Amino acid sequence: MKHLVSIRDISREEILELIDLAGKVEKNPEKYAHALDGKIMATLFYEPSTRTRLSFETAMHRLGGRVIGFSDAKVSSAKKGESIADTIRMASAYSDVIVLRHFLEGSGRVAVEYSDVPVISGGTGIQEHPSQALLDVYTIYKHFGRLNNLTIGLLGDLRYGRTIPSLLYAISKFKDNKVFLFSPPELRTRMSVLNDVRDNIEAIIRQDLKSNIEELDVLYVTRVQKERFPDEASYERVKDFYVIDPEIARRMNKNSIIMHPLPRINEISYEVDSLPQAKYFEQAKNGVWMRMALLLKLIGETK
Amino acid sequence: MKHLVSIRDISREEILELIDLAGKVEKNPEKYAHALDGKIMATLFYEPSTRTRLSFETAMHRLGGRVIGFSDAKVSSAKKGESIADTIRMASAYSDVIVLRHFLEGSGRVAVEYSDVPVISGGTGIQEHPSQALLDVYTIYKHFGRLNNLTIGLLGDLRYGRTIPSLLYAISKFKDNKVFLFSPPELRTRMSVLNDVRDNIEAIIRQDLKSNIEELDVLYVTRVQKERFPDEASYERVKDFYVIDPEIARRMNKNSIIMHPLPRINEISYEVDSLPQAKYFEQAKNGVWMRMALLLKLIGETK
Amino acid sequence: MKHLVSIRDISREEILELIDLAGKVEKNPEKYAHALDGKIMATLFYEPSTRTRLSFETAMHRLGGRVIGFSDAKVSSAKKGESIADTIRMASAYSDVIVLRHFLEGSGRVAVEYSDVPVISGGTGIQEHPSQALLDVYTIYKHFGRLNNLTIGLLGDLRYGRTIPSLLYAISKFKDNKVFLFSPPELRTRMSVLNDVRDNIEAIIRQDLKSNIEELDVLYVTRVQKERFPDEASYERVKDFYVIDPEIARRMNKNSIIMHPLPRINEISYEVDSLPQAKYFEQAKNGVWMRMALLLKLIGETK
Repeated sequence: MKHLVSIRDISREEILELIDLAGKVEKNPEKYAHALDGKIMATLFYEPSTRTRLSFETAMHRLGGRVIGFSDAKVSSAKKGESIADTIRMASAYSDVIVLRHFLEGSGRVAVEYSDVPVISGGTGIQEHPSQALLDVYTIYKHFGRLNNLTIGLLGDLRYGRTIPSLLYAISKFKDNKVFLFSPPELRTRMSVLNDVRDNIEAIIRQDLKSNIEELDVLYVTRVQKERFPDEASYERVKDFYVIDPEIARRMNKNSIIMHPLPRINEISYEVDSLPQAKYFEQAKNGVWMRMALLLKLIGETK
Repeated sequence: MKHLVSIRDISREEILELIDLAGKVEKNPEKYAHALDGKIMATLFYEPSTRTRLSFETAMHRLGGRVIGFSDAKVSSAKKGESIADTIRMASAYSDVIVLRHFLEGSGRVAVEYSDVPVISGGTGIQEHPSQALLDVYTIYKHFGRLNNLTIGLLGDLRYGRTIPSLLYAISKFKDNKVFLFSPPELRTRMSVLNDVRDNIEAIIRQDLKSNIEELDVLYVTRVQKERFPDEASYERVKDFYVIDPEIARRMNKNSIIMHPLPRINEISYEVDSLPQAKYFEQAKNGVWMRMALLLKLIGETK
Repeated sequence: MKHLVSIRDISREEILELIDLAGKVEKNPEKYAHALDGKIMATLFYEPSTRTRLSFETAMHRLGGRVIGFSDAKVSSAKKGESIADTIRMASAYSDVIVLRHFLEGSGRVAVEYSDVPVISGGTGIQEHPSQALLDVYTIYKHFGRLNNLTIGLLGDLRYGRTIPSLLYAISKFKDNKVFLFSPPELRTRMSVLNDVRDNIEAIIRQDLKSNIEELDVLYVTRVQKERFPDEASYERVKDFYVIDPEIARRMNKNSIIMHPLPRINEISYEVDSLPQAKYFEQAKNGVWMRMALLLKLIGETK
């Protein structure tokens, strides 16, 4: 494991190792406070992000490392027309690890080709967001003690976000998992993704959450954006199926959890935040521990 | 003192303690160079700022701490519609202290409600800028050795800036102070603010600075912005009363000082900069010492 | 040497000292890892830049120092109309060294006048980019072991970029150098610059690269921007003379090198990158070593 640009590139064993390391870091962060002293991380963010960028930067600082980068492509040489390849070559001359967020499909692969240092995708193209998938499975593992034999509902926009494909690929490395895909027809998971994971996941496509809510161990919510629909009426017709309120949450199993990659707009109502199922803020916090593990694995001494 | 979102929340004793600590830090900064090693400050700036953001960041670095954040809401999840509450919950999961600048009234209170870590207002709404008020009183205290029994002139836009209400609230915690409020009628201090401080401050409203200039210990200048006036003529009629030139400065008492929260545009002419009364650049520098004191008090060991 | 706002201000000996120090830093960076512990660099960038800003920040971090600043004038007080002089006074109250990028001619001189700490131009006005010139001569010196008796071709836009005048001034401090100035008539080096360096440099103006390509030790390429031409036809007429492809590169002397300040758009084709002459990525990397040397010289203990 030299880079992380797709969750598909790493094995089940590597995922479990990262989960184990993230757990150690969470238990004893002081032990790692100087693990990356003298190292530099470059965060090259061509798209807006708060959570991913800030949690990677927090992770690096908590390991003693330093951060350079940009969070707005307009202030970078991209504005002058520089290619990703050249920007990556520059960043790899300055830093010890690169975190790239870019809208272009394949930008992560290009980065790996031109970089002399490890590259981590911080969200690239429409289906790669591997560090998000890792913190998601870390959150699930911490709660259930396993990544097998779970019933997971994915809800909302399963088509255009990067989070869902990455998470599906991660889950597909484990056994006996059943996944409900709850979405309006317009926002169903792409067939190419489904075909890739079908051998290992029992995938069930549903439009309506309500009939299967009691079965779920995990309900993973994403936002349904109005602008994805052809017209107002199509949106109005479906939007209410995809807002989680306390009534729905209370129908869920006592030991079940509700997750969300965040930012959340209104697809989970604020009253849910205080219910025991609400796991999304802890999930965000887990991002720091997992990203510390990832940085340790890629550029730490003990790799 | 767990947060600082309004100067009204802290007592006279706490202000004097912070002034005392800022003085110690200024005298011996090396002593505190590692006081916040391993701590992280999140600067969440939804409005442009140079001085406040950079002086907080400088303060944190000079204490050994690290900084994450954003200085442009466009590159953050706010663009995607995330609420302040959720952004604060995220930042508080990543950091040890949050500095928030936000245009919305009450945003500081919301932040406190949702944060697990201390929150400092770096300018919120139209009347809260508590760290500015603290550095202002620190500057006055350093020069006069007291915060009682002073005659202070506030000049310019006393209505729309955050600085003036915060400073008035700070001064109102001390005794026997007389405040002249020099402004055009359109830019007078809000009645609600005046009512809050009238018991402790003798407040005199004036349109023209000239007749009282010799009485002042402190002349605190703020900018009169053309766009605050209903028409060009109203602006033209008053603007010349509110530009401080060497002639005015020389009429002031020898031991008096001229302050300004900066940035200054043309409301103090450049020739004044070299006069002994000009205190505004030292005032800016005092911001670092006071913010170091504030960070030490809120997240240091010795709190 | 207290500041670096123009390469014209420093002597040949100082250039050679900086080259020597950059070489020591490159050989043994660990030795300098804590040389600037506790120091703060302010990067004030009023124009977009990736390479200059990130390499200065990398240099500061690799020396143990910290960084504050802005990379977008819109988020700073400049938006509110603050003068450079006042912004510099503020930054010099917060930091130990200032790196300024600004579009205005003379902004570097203004900064020096108002700063209490060393100022480095990170590109100011239309002809000052001294740290770029230093990394350029460092790259040439590393390859040839000398800065005398070289034949250097400068190609492309020799009129509007800051890089070319700075490099010419740097070269003019050494002896027996011959410089070909290859450009379309519209983009020729300004006469004022040529007059300044003519006593020490044999300067030959050419429109076409091809007849002199075999003579060159160094080919320094810059981008020809369409918008510099009065009309499309003028641009179309010349643009092909100024794209370096492998055919041209192969006609060059075996020991010769191709340089470019980057970002490169299409003026050097990607096939050239793997040829032995291609030196531009190493040149970018040299920027970190040279900027470390510069920071050490200006604010290190051993100055």
